[in-house]
Amino acid sequence: MAELKKCAVHTITTKAWTLAECCERYATAGFGGICVWRNAIEPIGVEAAAKIVRASGLAVPSLVRGGFFVATDKGKRAAAAEENRKCIDEAAAIGAEQVVLVVGAEPGVPLPEARRHVADGLAKLLPYAEKNKVKLAIEPLHPMYAGDRSCVNRMAEARKLCEELKNPWLGIACDVYHVWWDPDLKQEIALAGQQGTLFGFHVCDWRVNTRDLLNDRGLMGEGCIDIATIRDWVETAGFNGLNEVEIFSTELWATDQTEYLQRIATACRQHV
Amino acid sequence: MAELKKCAVHTITTKAWTLAECCERYATAGFGGICVWRNAIEPIGVEAAAKIVRASGLAVPSLVRGGFFVATDKGKRAAAAEENRKCIDEAAAIGAEQVVLVVGAEPGVPLPEARRHVADGLAKLLPYAEKNKVKLAIEPLHPMYAGDRSCVNRMAEARKLCEELKNPWLGIACDVYHVWWDPDLKQEIALAGQQGTLFGFHVCDWRVNTRDLLNDRGLMGEGCIDIATIRDWVETAGFNGLNEVEIFSTELWATDQTEYLQRIATACRQHV
Repeated sequence: MAELKKCAVHTITTKAWTLAECCERYATAGFGGICVWRNAIEPIGVEAAAKIVRASGLAVPSLVRGGFFVATDKGKRAAAAEENRKCIDEAAAIGAEQVVLVVGAEPGVPLPEARRHVADGLAKLLPYAEKNKVKLAIEPLHPMYAGDRSCVNRMAEARKLCEELKNPWLGIACDVYHVWWDPDLKQEIALAGQQGTLFGFHVCDWRVNTRDLLNDRGLMGEGCIDIATIRDWVETAGFNGLNEVEIFSTELWATDQTEYLQRIATACRQHV
Repeated sequence: MAELKKCAVHTITTKAWTLAECCERYATAGFGGICVWRNAIEPIGVEAAAKIVRASGLAVPSLVRGGFFVATDKGKRAAAAEENRKCIDEAAAIGAEQVVLVVGAEPGVPLPEARRHVADGLAKLLPYAEKNKVKLAIEPLHPMYAGDRSCVNRMAEARKLCEELKNPWLGIACDVYHVWWDPDLKQEIALAGQQGTLFGFHVCDWRVNTRDLLNDRGLMGEGCIDIATIRDWVETAGFNGLNEVEIFSTELWATDQTEYLQRIATACRQHV
């Protein structure tokens, strides 16, 4: 039942389109916002990207994505820190409220150690975020990514990081794909609302018989997530940001993307 | 560092072999036990199966698998209850200590409702388990199975069911594949030890770049799970049962199964 003006689309969702095409087509379709992936900025540079995005009149809830704090190699951690500052610069340039963080994981790094890398990396990055007035949103990823992408897999773990680092520029991006199964979800969303850390809300769906761990997300309504209920929890918690549509799907990417954007619009109205 | 005598193999791991072949080859290789999947019993019937298993001298930690308590259709739930009693009969016949339960999930059944089906189904089944002196072990499955296989996805959730139903015949089967990522794992294993509910310990590995949600488990040592550390936690918690090797793998099933069993033996000695 979400109005389109309250929905934003992640550029990765229609990844064949240029940033200019995304902006024009999302706006024309009636969406209120765009979430910009860095690969959409890269071919044209951040100045040109900023002009296009700002001219579109679309809200920009997020730049995607930073993080990747975990590495045994110190040089790699330093390179990630540098890249994260660049993310913040880009976010500031295009007027994005927040940078979404995939915190990282590395095979061979025990999870407790990986989680220390994340806390340390965040602590060092936060002053730069604050200075640039860009929020940082930890996105807990589904436990199936704990081996190589994210050692933070539940809202509760993201909350503990926020409590430890206590900084108004640090919060959580809640993506239904990653957290829908968690019995503590309702309570954690409420807590994030109370603590002022609910920075983002991402939607897509979990296909029963998922065929691929990365690129087989469903359009809202195609899977088994009760998105509307979770959306209610998020609203009750005081979140008034945009619903961000973020779908990675080999199947959906192969369809006519103009029709696909219309399907996304319909799915937002019916299932979010 | 596990001795083979302290390890059992699930028949599904070498699924091309008959039950008789599994028994003979596991025993010859030096394993201490066998965990019998029902599809290994089916072609020969439970009486013949019981004779083969009992004659092998192998320990039988578990019969796999019962459960599947979740269904909107009452008739389906009744059929599952009947099937679960049959599981218990078979476990008693072959001398298995416990039936491993995959509790079920159904697309369209909200998770809180599904979890009620599970609690109700367990409550009804427990008297029959007790009468037949067969334990029931809830196996929390990885959150990636929450849509269609199991609405119980963490040790904590299995513990809460055990606390609610409080029956010495009800406990938990801890499979590293499903729970390794959980920051609460150590604490939950310790709690299960204290509460006397740690009934089973299953090992395999999580392959980085998992290619399939169901049949791409790794042999111990091939993935990113720190199995030996988890095994230490389990021992510290007082568990003295067998380490159960349970691997579903299209890749490994396609290899020479006699050599594969030797690789499993080596992996048990080195990584469990």
